[in-house]
Amino acid sequence: MSIDNSRIAEIFTQVHAQAPLIHQITNFVVMNDTANITLHLGASPVMAHAAEEVEEMVSLAGALVLNIGTLTPDWIEAMLRAGRKANQLGVPVVLDPVGAGATSLRTRSGLRLLEELDISIVRGNAGEIGALSGSGGTVRGVDSVEGVHDPEAVAQIARAWGTIVAVTGKRDLLSDGRRTLGVDNGHAWLATLTGTGCMATTTIAAFAAVEPDRLLAAAGGLAVYGLAAELAAPEARGPAGFKVAFLDQVYNLTPEQITSGVRVVELAPPAAGE
Amino acid sequence: MSIDNSRIAEIFTQVHAQAPLIHQITNFVVMNDTANITLHLGASPVMAHAAEEVEEMVSLAGALVLNIGTLTPDWIEAMLRAGRKANQLGVPVVLDPVGAGATSLRTRSGLRLLEELDISIVRGNAGEIGALSGSGGTVRGVDSVEGVHDPEAVAQIARAWGTIVAVTGKRDLLSDGRRTLGVDNGHAWLATLTGTGCMATTTIAAFAAVEPDRLLAAAGGLAVYGLAAELAAPEARGPAGFKVAFLDQVYNLTPEQITSGVRVVELAPPAAGE
Amino acid sequence: MSIDNSRIAEIFTQVHAQAPLIHQITNFVVMNDTANITLHLGASPVMAHAAEEVEEMVSLAGALVLNIGTLTPDWIEAMLRAGRKANQLGVPVVLDPVGAGATSLRTRSGLRLLEELDISIVRGNAGEIGALSGSGGTVRGVDSVEGVHDPEAVAQIARAWGTIVAVTGKRDLLSDGRRTLGVDNGHAWLATLTGTGCMATTTIAAFAAVEPDRLLAAAGGLAVYGLAAELAAPEARGPAGFKVAFLDQVYNLTPEQITSGVRVVELAPPAAGE
Repeated sequence: MSIDNSRIAEIFTQVHAQAPLIHQITNFVVMNDTANITLHLGASPVMAHAAEEVEEMVSLAGALVLNIGTLTPDWIEAMLRAGRKANQLGVPVVLDPVGAGATSLRTRSGLRLLEELDISIVRGNAGEIGALSGSGGTVRGVDSVEGVHDPEAVAQIARAWGTIVAVTGKRDLLSDGRRTLGVDNGHAWLATLTGTGCMATTTIAAFAAVEPDRLLAAAGGLAVYGLAAELAAPEARGPAGFKVAFLDQVYNLTPEQITSGVRVVELAPPAAGE
Repeated sequence: MSIDNSRIAEIFTQVHAQAPLIHQITNFVVMNDTANITLHLGASPVMAHAAEEVEEMVSLAGALVLNIGTLTPDWIEAMLRAGRKANQLGVPVVLDPVGAGATSLRTRSGLRLLEELDISIVRGNAGEIGALSGSGGTVRGVDSVEGVHDPEAVAQIARAWGTIVAVTGKRDLLSDGRRTLGVDNGHAWLATLTGTGCMATTTIAAFAAVEPDRLLAAAGGLAVYGLAAELAAPEARGPAGFKVAFLDQVYNLTPEQITSGVRVVELAPPAAGE
Repeated sequence: MSIDNSRIAEIFTQVHAQAPLIHQITNFVVMNDTANITLHLGASPVMAHAAEEVEEMVSLAGALVLNIGTLTPDWIEAMLRAGRKANQLGVPVVLDPVGAGATSLRTRSGLRLLEELDISIVRGNAGEIGALSGSGGTVRGVDSVEGVHDPEAVAQIARAWGTIVAVTGKRDLLSDGRRTLGVDNGHAWLATLTGTGCMATTTIAAFAAVEPDRLLAAAGGLAVYGLAAELAAPEARGPAGFKVAFLDQVYNLTPEQITSGVRVVELAPPAAGE
């Protein structure tokens, strides 16, 4: 069973129409990239991590991104403060637990954010989600990753955490614990660049800022992101050229391309009568 | 009345000849971009924010950039320390009050830097300058911006603050309170990228490092910056490709292109006899 | 006397085969670039600077990079902590003393890292190495640099510090105090970009992660880095376009290109009988 692609195109169009502010407390490595993709999607980025201003800033925002890629304890405190205010205001919070499983600081911090906040969507790779859920998993590219790779496991984690879980990989798997979706857009070039997971998280946040069906927002964001990569790939001769082509493609995407190009499938529809 | 373009070409040539060190205490998002444009202009960048070294570093510098885009209180203290030393030594200080009006931390910090330091030039958008001057204004892209859009208002703010004020927009407006200039160079692609305001501020600083007429330095910097964008635009198919073409164009600009291409007009010349 | 180029190609191939994790405590300006080049070389980057996790992170790593480009005292403490753990585990530590000589904080911090840690390789420009060794030298591009420019001086510094010293310039000079090598690969475009020294340091670290002969690893890393610049140069019309072509070339390099293109010479072979 397939998702109606035109619904995803509509969300994309709404991001441009509403231009939500996406407040990002994120890592030093990717800030420039995630700010740029926010703009290219038609939304507006702001990076702000001072405890003194995060509550005020998130009050202006359509979504909040928390990304622990270069975390320190004071940044986690700022994330908690921003997240609590976002929760009060109903602003969706999207968590990217970069490197969970690699160190106990990362695993603990990811879990603390999940426990103390109402996280709307978590996006990570199989190892990161696995590490947080106790299913194993470790840092990207180091050991063999024992992670979360099947739809039912993703659904179980979503139920356990009471949030939407998005595990990105060759097929992205997303679940709110009830419905489970697969996204088949994407391209191998993305793995040759730093920050492509973080930019995917930002894309999800921009979609969640304008779409109340957050599972669809997350899947739609990942599908659009992956579609841009597919369309850019033929121009690439290497990762840096791919990055230019990809960001340009994100900017130039049309609703028509999205309607014809995204590939989102329903893997575990809710039981009849639900 | 028009400014003599060859004077602006001369300043550009002097930046290459003198290669001043531009000390930048700036935000995490744009550091790579502002360092690169400094090099492409023929100047030399250094990013240094430790309280323990900012005074020593600024003593080597031709100009100091203070940019509050990802501010925290300790960074503001470092900015004050560097700024005081710059003031003692006569090193020009250029302020970019990123996001002033969005949070009270940003507005207060911007005002504090203006009050406690002898700021040579402030560059912001209409909303940021409006917020600092009490003329309204708020974060980029969030609300309708009530900002500073007319030359006389810019001149008044410049007089009130005792500094040069540069409000960038479709027409950039600059005033030292006495003379007011307009700069008509620029291109819409700049708005699709993060950091383009910050890079403009760095360009102003490089020009101010070598030119005692700081109003002309600021206007010339913005004109050259905007001209490079105009010349790069035909090559762009999207924002990322534009960025590459733009930075290459900054590097490849010639004094001849500047003399024939910059468009700076005198809007409120000083009264006769002044 | 020439180095066997196929040995360098083998090290390059081993980086791809082993994909070592390169833990980098580095500066804010270049993090994105150094993470990307790590990936393009077939290795895996992680940036982690929290005192709470650096020991655990470096335990997973094949090499550790310490770069003081935007240092503060707490970052230096984290570098020391990570470095001590790396020393215990035999993980090679590569130091980039960015800006040593410009401020006493930088010079002192560079010296402290050299004294308190067992640094495997130091890479800097002539001014930085000169400043640390007491041979003069000052910040890039500010004053006339009195630095270290002859092979015997580099060998002496290497002996004094008990480490491998790599001074990059038109001809890179490297010594472990016994053998001294020169690397003639490189291109002038590299000097038009920020972070190209830092990316060279990361390349050295990736090579040192898989090759026990660390002098050869360092020279090989610099040669491969410079070769990629040479091969990319014909495509460049400016520094930003060069950067794209260069990073793509790093990704696309083949062992055959390396075998035929690297130019490493033995300048002071060990005495016969050694």
